[in-house]
Amino acid sequence: MKNDLLIRTLNGEQTERPPVWLMRQAGRILPEYRAIRAAVSGFKELVTSPKLAAEVTTQPIDILKVDAAIIFSDILVIPECMGLPYELVEKVGPRFPRVIENARDINNMRSGDSAASELSYVYDAVRLAKKRLAGRVPLIGFAGAPWTLLAYMVEGGGSKTFSRAKAFLYAQPRLAHLLLDKITETIISYLQQKVIAGVDVLQVFDSWAGILNRDLYETFGLPYLEKICRSVNKVPLIAFAKGAWFSHQAISQLHCEAIGLDWSAPPSWARGVFGEQRVLQGNLDPCALLADDRRIVLETEHMLREFGPHHIANLGHGVYPDTSVESVHTFVNTVQNFRY
Amino acid sequence: MKNDLLIRTLNGEQTERPPVWLMRQAGRILPEYRAIRAAVSGFKELVTSPKLAAEVTTQPIDILKVDAAIIFSDILVIPECMGLPYELVEKVGPRFPRVIENARDINNMRSGDSAASELSYVYDAVRLAKKRLAGRVPLIGFAGAPWTLLAYMVEGGGSKTFSRAKAFLYAQPRLAHLLLDKITETIISYLQQKVIAGVDVLQVFDSWAGILNRDLYETFGLPYLEKICRSVNKVPLIAFAKGAWFSHQAISQLHCEAIGLDWSAPPSWARGVFGEQRVLQGNLDPCALLADDRRIVLETEHMLREFGPHHIANLGHGVYPDTSVESVHTFVNTVQNFRY
Repeated sequence: MKNDLLIRTLNGEQTERPPVWLMRQAGRILPEYRAIRAAVSGFKELVTSPKLAAEVTTQPIDILKVDAAIIFSDILVIPECMGLPYELVEKVGPRFPRVIENARDINNMRSGDSAASELSYVYDAVRLAKKRLAGRVPLIGFAGAPWTLLAYMVEGGGSKTFSRAKAFLYAQPRLAHLLLDKITETIISYLQQKVIAGVDVLQVFDSWAGILNRDLYETFGLPYLEKICRSVNKVPLIAFAKGAWFSHQAISQLHCEAIGLDWSAPPSWARGVFGEQRVLQGNLDPCALLADDRRIVLETEHMLREFGPHHIANLGHGVYPDTSVESVHTFVNTVQNFRY
Repeated sequence: MKNDLLIRTLNGEQTERPPVWLMRQAGRILPEYRAIRAAVSGFKELVTSPKLAAEVTTQPIDILKVDAAIIFSDILVIPECMGLPYELVEKVGPRFPRVIENARDINNMRSGDSAASELSYVYDAVRLAKKRLAGRVPLIGFAGAPWTLLAYMVEGGGSKTFSRAKAFLYAQPRLAHLLLDKITETIISYLQQKVIAGVDVLQVFDSWAGILNRDLYETFGLPYLEKICRSVNKVPLIAFAKGAWFSHQAISQLHCEAIGLDWSAPPSWARGVFGEQRVLQGNLDPCALLADDRRIVLETEHMLREFGPHHIANLGHGVYPDTSVESVHTFVNTVQNFRY
């Protein structure tokens, strides 16, 4: 690997500077991505076409010069391969025509290897992307965490409150665990297949961790995330439980190589609770990239100094689509010029 | 005052049980509210009609037997009286046809007494509600906090990220402070007028505190909330900075009589950081009221025991509109039957 900064950081080495990549770096911020997106029928065509997915995966390496690629895909491929197809409605977000309501719905779902084997288009995209990268930087594969996927499968789409999904946890705890088990088995098989196909690092996103509270998250969220961490251990894994500050003690016990942080977590607080040696990833506010260059440099350097070594520079959330490419360059350059 | 449990709790007294009320208790959960709402042209007609606003304010006292009334109104009456009218779009939320973009927009706004004097319909509603209550329970008056109101005034409506409003803080800090000053002066005058009209307690909601980080919130949020706490001190004030766990040290220094907590804050954590003597309000997950009665009782009693005395029982957010009245009764009864 020509640039192995991310791998060395994840292995616990103190590197000369932090590696940097951005969540959603392969996406609408790049005109080159928008050109490909405009030529296909929709987002799902891009996700399911290995050649196109591999192409947009490597664009940020060529254009933004980031230290890692992340395979272009969607967390909702898992519900779909289990038998619950999703749609992406322009300006609204994901929508599930059918949702999970009862035990029969759950029993009817495929899971584990038989579900994950449906996703050959992802494994093919990984293989093609690895070829295009030709050892320049590591390739990250990702999955949504079980609670986040359950949230979509029960709610039927995005939501401000996810009250239907949360009510399911309160009212049907036994069914929730049944569904979480099936989702977890599928994610494990899926991530193992991605590792076989060639990904060098994994990231698991629990995007909706923060709408639960400690009791709920430590009952319905973290145990399943931990099972994934323990089952998929051939490559380093980054666990990102967005907004779950209240469970920091349990998160620090996860068997993962790095912990992702959203922008609400002060770096000094994170170092205090997770320790100086733990690899932490994040967490610049994506809105900071909407300021002028001078401010972006100040905010980025402030974050880098606060985290210190054993840090992967990133935003605290996916980059917002209306961010200018110049601002992303400023962020990336600031990290790459920094020295501990 | 026949039932002065809330006042005694806010004065630091150790009461026999916690007082209980619900954010959004005057609203869609009650069929009696929906009947009045159906008979008017829209939400804004209800807000601006003192007689109707007073009527829906007192409904929860008659029906739910809660220990406090809260005047029916909206936080967006403040932007409107400053010169920025709002609309409420069914199933979408608030929308501002005009937004704040530059210094001229800010200079053109009314503020302080001249703006707040436009809101006589609120003060009239307070007087009528006090008459209807006839000393049964205290009446709470509320306002949105300056940052939350700025967020709407710059963003132009609700948003998942409020990226436009947050970018304004990063890119135009001087203008942001100018606007926050004008909003703060208006809120202070507004709350003073409500006290004169008869409210017994105040609550200030910083609904969007949690989308900032510590640096931003302690620059653009808390100093203005503190100014309100210091300027409006004739009646007890409850400050609710939703989601701002990262600023708990600064919040604990606020000159207010109680601190509101959203459901993400574990009660044991809150007692640890705010102390056993501080009056805390909250924080049952509103989704818990979507479970069965047995579970509601368990969750409520668990919360009451965890907070212990010097606590005002409430949800961690406004009650969700699809909550059944029976479940709200179960919650209220559980608190009222509890003894320390």
